[in-house]
Order: sequence, then C-alpha cells, then structure tokens
Amino acid sequence: MKHLQFLFALLLVPCMAVAQTVKSPDGKVAVTFSLSPSGQPTYEMTFKNKQVVKPSHLGLELAKDKHASKGLKETDLMDGFKITDTKISAFDETWTPVWGQFKKIRNHYNELAVSLHQASSDRNIIIRFRVYDDGMGLRYEFPQQQSLNYFLIKEEHTQFAMTGDHTAWWLPGDYDTQEQETQETKLSEIRERFKKAVNWNNSSVSVFSPTGVQTALQLKTQDDLYLNIHEAACIDYATMHLNLDDKNFVFESWLTPDATGLKGCMQTPCSTPWRTVMVSDDARDMLASSLILNLNEPCKLEDTSWIHPVKYCGVWWEMIVGKSSWNYTDEYPSVKLDEMDWSKAKPNGRHAANTEHVKKYIDFAAANGLQQVLIEGWNVGWEDWANMWKWDVFDFVTPYPDFDIKALNDYAHSKGVKLMMHHETSSSVINYERHLDKAFDLMKKYGYDAVKGGYVGDIIPRGDHHFSQAMNNHYLYVIKEAAKRHIMVNAHEATRPTGLCRTYPNLIGNESARGTEYEAFGGSNPDHTVVLPFTRLQGGPMDYTPGILETQLKTWSDNPNYVHTTLAGQLALYLVMWGPIQMAADLPENYQKYADAFQFIKDVAVDWDDSRYIEAEPGDYITVARKAKGTDNWFVGGKCDENGHQSVVRLDFLDKGAKYECTLYADAKGADYKTNPKAYTITKRTVKKGYVLKIDEARGGGFAISLIKK
Amino acid sequence: MKHLQFLFALLLVPCMAVAQTVKSPDGKVAVTFSLSPSGQPTYEMTFKNKQVVKPSHLGLELAKDKHASKGLKETDLMDGFKITDTKISAFDETWTPVWGQFKKIRNHYNELAVSLHQASSDRNIIIRFRVYDDGMGLRYEFPQQQSLNYFLIKEEHTQFAMTGDHTAWWLPGDYDTQEQETQETKLSEIRERFKKAVNWNNSSVSVFSPTGVQTALQLKTQDDLYLNIHEAACIDYATMHLNLDDKNFVFESWLTPDATGLKGCMQTPCSTPWRTVMVSDDARDMLASSLILNLNEPCKLEDTSWIHPVKYCGVWWEMIVGKSSWNYTDEYPSVKLDEMDWSKAKPNGRHAANTEHVKKYIDFAAANGLQQVLIEGWNVGWEDWANMWKWDVFDFVTPYPDFDIKALNDYAHSKGVKLMMHHETSSSVINYERHLDKAFDLMKKYGYDAVKGGYVGDIIPRGDHHFSQAMNNHYLYVIKEAAKRHIMVNAHEATRPTGLCRTYPNLIGNESARGTEYEAFGGSNPDHTVVLPFTRLQGGPMDYTPGILETQLKTWSDNPNYVHTTLAGQLALYLVMWGPIQMAADLPENYQKYADAFQFIKDVAVDWDDSRYIEAEPGDYITVARKAKGTDNWFVGGKCDENGHQSVVRLDFLDKGAKYECTLYADAKGADYKTNPKAYTITKRTVKKGYVLKIDEARGGGFAISLIKK
Repeated sequence: MKHLQFLFALLLVPCMAVAQTVKSPDGKVAVTFSLSPSGQPTYEMTFKNKQVVKPSHLGLELAKDKHASKGLKETDLMDGFKITDTKISAFDETWTPVWGQFKKIRNHYNELAVSLHQASSDRNIIIRFRVYDDGMGLRYEFPQQQSLNYFLIKEEHTQFAMTGDHTAWWLPGDYDTQEQETQETKLSEIRERFKKAVNWNNSSVSVFSPTGVQTALQLKTQDDLYLNIHEAACIDYATMHLNLDDKNFVFESWLTPDATGLKGCMQTPCSTPWRTVMVSDDARDMLASSLILNLNEPCKLEDTSWIHPVKYCGVWWEMIVGKSSWNYTDEYPSVKLDEMDWSKAKPNGRHAANTEHVKKYIDFAAANGLQQVLIEGWNVGWEDWANMWKWDVFDFVTPYPDFDIKALNDYAHSKGVKLMMHHETSSSVINYERHLDKAFDLMKKYGYDAVKGGYVGDIIPRGDHHFSQAMNNHYLYVIKEAAKRHIMVNAHEATRPTGLCRTYPNLIGNESARGTEYEAFGGSNPDHTVVLPFTRLQGGPMDYTPGILETQLKTWSDNPNYVHTTLAGQLALYLVMWGPIQMAADLPENYQKYADAFQFIKDVAVDWDDSRYIEAEPGDYITVARKAKGTDNWFVGGKCDENGHQSVVRLDFLDKGAKYECTLYADAKGADYKTNPKAYTITKRTVKKGYVLKIDEARGGGFAISLIKK
Repeated sequence: MKHLQFLFALLLVPCMAVAQTVKSPDGKVAVTFSLSPSGQPTYEMTFKNKQVVKPSHLGLELAKDKHASKGLKETDLMDGFKITDTKISAFDETWTPVWGQFKKIRNHYNELAVSLHQASSDRNIIIRFRVYDDGMGLRYEFPQQQSLNYFLIKEEHTQFAMTGDHTAWWLPGDYDTQEQETQETKLSEIRERFKKAVNWNNSSVSVFSPTGVQTALQLKTQDDLYLNIHEAACIDYATMHLNLDDKNFVFESWLTPDATGLKGCMQTPCSTPWRTVMVSDDARDMLASSLILNLNEPCKLEDTSWIHPVKYCGVWWEMIVGKSSWNYTDEYPSVKLDEMDWSKAKPNGRHAANTEHVKKYIDFAAANGLQQVLIEGWNVGWEDWANMWKWDVFDFVTPYPDFDIKALNDYAHSKGVKLMMHHETSSSVINYERHLDKAFDLMKKYGYDAVKGGYVGDIIPRGDHHFSQAMNNHYLYVIKEAAKRHIMVNAHEATRPTGLCRTYPNLIGNESARGTEYEAFGGSNPDHTVVLPFTRLQGGPMDYTPGILETQLKTWSDNPNYVHTTLAGQLALYLVMWGPIQMAADLPENYQKYADAFQFIKDVAVDWDDSRYIEAEPGDYITVARKAKGTDNWFVGGKCDENGHQSVVRLDFLDKGAKYECTLYADAKGADYKTNPKAYTITKRTVKKGYVLKIDEARGGGFAISLIKK
C-alpha cells in the first residue's frame, strides 16, 4: 500500500523548478530555496543582491525510541525529499499592539511555502519562508499524517552559513542562563574567548560547545551589513542556540535538551518556531524592526483592557546590595515549611519586607506617581531557598510574621498604589505549579494584578534545563493561567523571549539577561545597555530595573561595587531599554538626594505611540526618541559605551509649529562612569521641530530629554 | 572550631560496648548491632537462636554536587563512625485501623536506637531497630545539624546477608513495573532465570542488574524458615529494590534513580523508610503479620468517617478482553484536546462508556448490592493516549459526547449506587497535577467519592521512573489532595505500597502487581494468587479485580485466552486477595449465567474484624477465614496452584454453641483450570464450632464458604 502511495505521489509531482526565490515587498531581501542532489532542503539569502546567508541546509534528525513500533517514526527528516508543491503569496496587514514601541505595526511580507515529500518514509513536511524588508523567517511545518503522528527530535539542523568572519556580539551558549557579559569578537575568535565568557557568578553553567552561542545574535559584516539571528514564537519547543563551525563560519541550530538529552517530543500537526535572520545596512533598522513580533500569532486574549504599563519601585535593591535580607531569621540551618512555627522564630533584624518599612516605599510611590511597589522577601521560605535541591521551597501564600499583607494592601490602595506580587520559585517548578492556583487566588483577594516571577538555581526536577521544551511550556502555562485571572507576568531567569508578548500581552516583561543587579555583584561593562537592545530585546521587553542614581554603593552600604554608568546614563535607560514595565530601582532616600534628576523618572512614559531611532551602533551608542502613548509629548534617551559619544539630536519628529518645553538631563563636563559618575546638568529650553541638540555623553554616560508640548 | 567540637565529642563518648542486642517481646527474634573495625555499622539477626541474617553492613553513599560548597556535603555515610549513645526501649500499643484484616492491631516491639558520630565530617546519624515477634525494621535517621542539612544519595547500601541458597519468590527488579510473573527459584538460579523473567508485555522495561529483584521478597530457607524482606513507610524517598551478590547470597538495597541517575535529595531532619525482615517457621505468620503497618505513622486524617469499603462492578473487562473500546472514534491518527470538536467526531460504534450501556451496569449494581460502578473511557483523549510522549493526554473533566455524566450520576444515585471515577494519567504526571483541582471538583460536583488512578506508560517528564522519590511524592500528593476533599484513591501502576494506608486510609487500594487483566493478555500462572499475598500484599491491599466466572473468554469474545483458575477459584480470591475495595469484574450477562455462584460475590464482605490463616505455603496454597466487620458471619476462601490441594478447614473460630448456615462453593469433581474450569458445586449445611470440612481444590482451583450465623 505504501508502495502504491509512493508511485501515486510521483505521478502527481510536476516537473518542479530547481530553485524558487521569494523577495521582500521592497525587493531588497531575497530568499532562494532549492534541494541538493541528495534531496536536502537548502536556502540562501541576499540583501540588495549581496549574499548574506550562503547556501544552508535545513532538516531535523529524529531520535530513536522504544515505542517506535507504535508510531514514533525514526527516519530523519534531513534528505531524500522531493518538492511536491510551492506556493508564493503576499500578506499586508496593520495591527495594534496592546503596548509597545509603536501604536500600529505593519506586518508586510511575501511568503514561499515549499511542500516536500520524503518517499522512503512516505512523509510530508512544509518549509515556509516569510520575507520582510528587514529580514526573513523560516519554519518547518509537520501536517498530521498517518506516517508522521509523533516524533522525537534528536537535533534540529538549521544552518546559517555566514559569508565571512563577521564581528559578533555573543553570549556563550548555555542551557540555563543568559546572564553573562556580551562578548564582541570576530567569529574566528569565539573559541579562544569562550572560557572567559562563561559567567563567573553562575552556579548552573550548562555550556555545550566551545563555539556555542545564544540568540538573538547580532552580527556585523566587513562591508557594514548588520545581521541578527534569532527565533520567533517558540512554543512547545526547546529554545535554540547556535553552534558555529568556525572554519567555515556556518552556524547551526542546537536545541536545549531535556534530562535525557532529547530535544523535543512532537505531535502533528505542529511546527517549529520561526528561525529569523534580520538584515540591513543601517544598524537602526535592527532596533526598529517588528519582525519577531510579526512572526508571532495575533493576540489570543479576548479582553486586554486590564493590561496596563507599570512604573514601580520596590523593596529589592537594598537586598541586592546586601544591606538587608530576604529571609526573616538566621536561626535555623534549614527550614521545613510544614513544620515551622514562624511566630517563634527569632527575627534577624535585617528583614526588609516588614510592614513599617514597606509603608515608606508605598508613601514614596504615592508621592511620585509610581503605580506599584514590589516587595521581595514577603513570604516564608527564604532561609534556605536556593540550590539545595529542596522541593517545597515556598508556598507563595504565607507572609512572614512581620509582613501584614492585608494592612499593606489596604494602605497602598488608600493611596492609589498597588503592591506587586513576587513569586520566586527557586526553580522548583512542580512545587510552583502545585501552589499556583492558591497563589493567584491570594493575589486576587488582596488586589495584586502583576507578579514578578523568578527561576533562580537549577531546575527541579533535576536534569531539566531552563530553556527546555518542558520549561518553555511551563512559562507559557503560567502566563495563560495568569491571564485567566487578569494577572500580568514579568518572569525573571525564564528563557529569552521570542515575541510571545504579541499573543499573550499580559507577559509584560522578562529578565532573561544580565540585569542591573550585576552592578552590585561586580558590575557590567558600560557598553552592556547599548548591546542588549540589539540582542536580548529583539524578543520582547526586559525588566532591567534601571534608575540607580546613587551609582556608588559604598556611600550607603558596605558594598564596594559601583554602577558602570553615569547618573545621566541611568536616566537614558528608560528609553533605550524600552518596555511597559520599568522600575525606579534605587532607594527612596537616594532619589531624595537627586530629586531634580529623579524628576525625569517621574515624568517619563513607559508605553509609546511611536519610536524613532536617531543613532545606533551595536556596543557603541543608541539614541532613540519616543512619543508617549496617547499624548503629544516625546522623550529622548541616548546611551553610550566606555568611550563616550557626541550625540546629535535633530527634533524632526515634533509637530510642525508647536512649542515644546525641553528638559535635558546630561552628563556634566568631566563626568565619567568610574571617576565622576554623578556630575550631571539639567537644562530647560523651549524648542520647535527641527531644533538640533548636540550633547556630549561621558564615558559610560548618556542623556535623557523630555519634550512636553505646550 | 570543627576540630574542637571533635575533641569535645570524643570526651563525651563513654567506652561503648562492642555489640548491642535487642530482642523481640517474646525473645525469639534478636538483632545485634556492632561497628566493624573501620567503624562501619553492622547488624545481624537471629530467630530462635538460629542466624537468619548474617552480619550485614549499613550505610549510605552520597553524591557529589556542584553546590557542595553551599552546604551539600559529599562525604559518604558508610564508615568511620563511633557510637555516642544507645537507647533500648519497649513499646506496646493497640490501635484501630479504619479498615483491614483485623479490628484491632497490636504494635508491640522493643527498640534499639544507636547514635553514631562520624568524626571526619562531624556528623551524627541514628540507626533505629524495632524488633517484633515476627521480624524487625531498621531505618537511618538524620537529625538536623549544621554539618548535615542537605545531602544527595548516590546509593543506599543496606545489606541483608542470607545464610544460604534459599528459595525465593521474586520479580525482576525494574524501575517502572511490578507486573511480571513471579519466579520461584533458588537464589543461585536468579541470574540464569532473569531474562525470561522480564515481562514480555511491558514496553518500559527498566531493569538494572541480572540479579536485581523487587520487594516484598518472600524466601524460604532449607530448614523451613520463612523470611520476607520489604520496606515500610516509603515517604519522600525512592522505592527500594534488592541486588543480589549471588556468590555470597548477600542482598543489598538498590534505590530507584531520577532522570539524572541520582537516588535521593534529602533535607534534615529526615529518615529513610524502614527496611524490614519478617521471619517465622510458620508460613501463615507471613500473611497474618501487621509489621509493615505498625512501622507506619498513625492515621493523619482527623475525620475518617467518610472512608468506606467498596464492592463494585464496572465498564472495564469488556475493553480489556477486546470487545469494546475506551476511545470514542477511530477517525483521527492523533488528537489534540484543545483543537477537537468531539461533537463532529465519527463514533466507532465500540465505545463502551456510553450512557445506555452504563445504565445496564448501574441496574446490575443496584440489583446486586454493589455500591459503585467504575466506568473507564468516559473522558476524551483515549484515541492516542499511551506511550507517545504526549503531554496533554487527558483533561479529566470532559466526557465523550455519548457519556451524559449528570444523567448517569443522577440515575445511579436514584438507585442507591455511586459511580467510581477513573483518572488514567498515561503517566503524564505534570499534566495530571495541573488538572487535579478541577478533576476533583468535578467529582464532588457529581457525587463521586472514589477514584481509580492509572499510570500506564513511561513517566513524563521523560527519564523519571514510576518508583522514584519524585513519583513517590506525587502519589502521596494525590492521596493527600484527595483526602482534603473526602475522596478515596485506588492507584494502578503506582509504586508498590509500603503500609501508607495506615497513615492515609483513603488509600483504599493499589494495583502495583500483575492483575486479573493479564488473564486476557495470555494468562497468569495458577500459583499467582497464592504468591501475591506473601509478596505484593505485604504493603497494602490490591485491587486485583477478581470474579471472572466466565473463565473462557472465547465464549463471548474473539479473545482466545482463558483465566488460569477454576470458577470456584475466582470466588476464593475475595478472601485470599484481601482488601476493602473488591471488584465483581466480569460482565453482568456472565454473572446471570452463573447466578448461583455469583451469590457468593454478592454475600462476601470486604472489610474484616478478624482473619485466621488456616493453611499457607507460598506458591502452593492459602486458606483463610475472615469475620465480616460488625457481624458474626465468617467467610472462608481457599486457593491453590496448578497441582490442586486438599484443604482441611476446622471451624474452630465460630462462636461456641451458635449455628451457622454454611454454603460451600467448591470445584466439582474433574474440575481443572485448563480443561474443565466451570465445574463447581454449591452445598449448604448447618454447622457449629469445631465442624471440619475437607475440600478438594482442583488444579488451579479453590473454594469459598459463607458462614451466616443463625
């Protein structure tokens, strides 16, 4: 019967063209698909007729399984394919995000769908390409069919063959963390730099190859083209890394395994995430692109009226710096939640999440227009929470005895402020899922509508990884369950985002990179925040927790570290590190010290009708102007690396004829992130469209501008 | 500081005796503890001054961990110990089980607790022995201490050194199944028999050693002593197997690993399960022992009034035999629950769990005094449920379109019958936990108070095993969550029980062995049910699903197999395979055919005030008399192997002077499980205390007696 089907399929196949090309709407980006002589799917990509991806193979290697006889097929989906159909189509639609950089987003592409038949296994797959003016996405699709119902992925072999020894901004590939410093090297230098690149502070190092790197990977060619490789819509699939063949400069996909080394369990109909390559000769296009969002499904939430941007402060930085503690007592070498009588525990006197102290933060938020107050360390279990392979770490519902959850919420609400929930899971994932319902119930009972999640430490159950298929499913499960209850989610240490916030806009933020906390752990390079927008932020906003105006921690603590930006540079981050959730992360007393500069944090919007990238070069500088949602006001931020930068901002984007009060927060002369970080100037003037500002950014510095229409 | 502590500890240690002995209350069982010259804990055991366990080492090997520096110690707990204290004490208490073989159970033992200090690591452990008249239990205890807060178990090395080449009734050690046929061999023959012993029908074979066996392990020495090795109170710990050194006849514990090969994550204070050795020169003592229950904690449920025994029938055997199906449609090669429109699916015409058909079972239950009706296949997802590594297999709340859950429950309740819920998890454990709340809510909504659970197939997440620490925690989590809602649990394919039903008596049954279903898959040896009470039933009752009176399946189906007992033998199982949950597993129409024999199933109790083992020899025969709970009536069952048996039952246990109507259901002359299984006789007479019945049990046969006080 199979044999007959095969013959029948052959008869149906017309004489197909050897190669099929699809071009972007503006014709500048072209992707060509072909089959190798052995029937292996292959693509290449050009930009303005210049090759940017050399012929690269596509395919999946399947894992053998003891249940193969019951339908789990093992033949690889690598070669032996014939083209049975190709379809080229066009798509052009404009959609409205719930929040973001733009009021409207145009999703405009040409599509090539190639249907392939593998005769030896009688299986059909589709490879779909969507080509945009600023890049392309491709994915594998697996229709439901008798001969391909379930399969196990040993590895996906999607290649990205580079044309030369490009410069790359990369993180070492790791199954569990993205919190390393970005490395800027030639592709040929990755292997040499690799060991140094692995994060010193990470206890769960899961690297897999000395040339393995993470996405989004920003690249620059020797002829000044900018490329960016990432993925979109990673759902029910493992997060992709890239492994480099550094002789030939060919990247190949490398998925995150489960505890057994397997990389995916699939049931048709299904598809992989989109594998994306962005390209431009202007670095600003990398930042302004909506390609990743466009490749995600439209919003699946019927009602999004309850989703809103959040500017918040919180009981957090003082613990990160080491002045106070998450835990309530130091009395026990370990605790068991079901056996503890917390009322009898001896307080350590350093517990920050206590009622009186939290009230001060609430007062501060209310006085300064911050909508929410995050409190970490409010719930029992912090005495021995991390990396002990402890299953029942937290219950997410029991406050420490000195945290009056009802009184604090009542107090906050009376002042027009909400508290923000904190769910540190300690990566004990099943424990979190067991408590999720009750944890969310508690939130609704007291009026919380946003939760910061955390996944510190190794995943429990042991052997799984932060970026595996199962964990990606977990993160999405939490987002969906939260959405049912109108709760917004900001998950830290979860996998790097791939644009899912389009489909589930209650995912208002993620960490998934090296955040501000590392400034208290030894510092991040000054260029860190002029790299992240090119890499980490491609998939969605980051809860970077900026706004540390007292950059020298020893002025108020025993921590000898300092923030590797100037004070003005911290203000710039509210524009450069965009997102609908932004923290004013410093202590209230530090903001009092710099009240005039703090005014910008009070004023700046966190959601936008428009965004204009004025200047950009990865690792050097970014300058962006953004129009506050629903207003005529603009805010501009500029940030640079350790070399300083002279920024030229032409106010072309202002309304013609209108006047704006312009307040510029800039590095003062002689400012320097290391030697003189807190030298800043604030100047006000009235400006109109076309006005040009020339602003000196210090080493590790930056600037911020508010433009309020009169 | 550690050094000082060490010196201090040494000063405190008195000159300890070299060996400490503790004897059972009757003095017949003695356990002696000593330290080897290298400080390794060692024990030995005698019965009536005869050695039954030779000197055997105790200890745990710890795993190294990358977090060791944070407190996870790696030094093994194997040797280098000194005794710091020994305590001998006595305990005698009688407790009342919620259900069981006896109305009251006496827990009477002498205890030896040995406190040990390992100087090199400055750690303290306790090894505790409890010695009963019919055996002993030992366990390791780990007090909370600064130098032992968390640890990882690489392997537990508890030895059971046998005194010779005993006969053993064993199952091949396997991390995922206990559904093999029991093997009866000498210890020296295990290795040779091993391959054959591995279950042909098991797709998830996880054997670990060619001499690895499961517990409870029944043994018989050459001088006719009976030994049984098992464990009690396995909580937050992996299930123990035994690995045999078949040169020296030394068994050693072999724990079930997690996906990474690790065998346990521990936080002090904690302890291991009890490791038990039962001993007697009378095989009947093995069956009458309450040692395993006694070593479990008392009942933790405050209210147990809602827990009750259950005799039930159900929509089950017809699917097992192959005449009808669990699934509703054959139309799809696979289904995705969130994408299916079941109302449009084409019924396959074989779906048994349909409203009209279920009503017949309800009518049957109501007419015959059966309290509940189990319906398998009521809920969507059976189209592709097993072994596809499919995560979202079932949702546990959506009935197939032909199953009217409300109407059926209403109908059943109107007739005084309850439906029994069925939750097959397909071993997709996280999926089950995610749905557990709603699944239980549904049960309460419609009035279900008992659930049969199932764990068919490989554990998802992949790499974990049915008997691991995490899975044991899962089973107990389900039991506890069910208890909160007054739901009774009967989990199939879960780990073998270890007496937890004392602590959580809503655990009314388990499968965890080869049940009646295998009679439809090719059959079980006729001696099967005269082995299981010695092995599987030590830890708790089994939902064996007996009562297949139409033993020849081809009489009503296309299934060529037959039940490997006589019809009378099936009746005996209600006594021999004791438990508070008993199914009348055959079809109503088959019971109509044998209505006079079915009368015994209607009459027999399932909960007992007393039990008297009249005859017993492992693998040969068991005869037991039981007094029905709260009545003066007795029921007697006798079952034998393929050799037949002549049973002598002296009715010593009846009330003096009282008259009883005695109904004997016996094999007729010429009966034979293979050639003439349904030849039976029913005889009635009036009897009094002291009356003696001599009953011929056929090959694979048995008998049943009801004794109703007049």
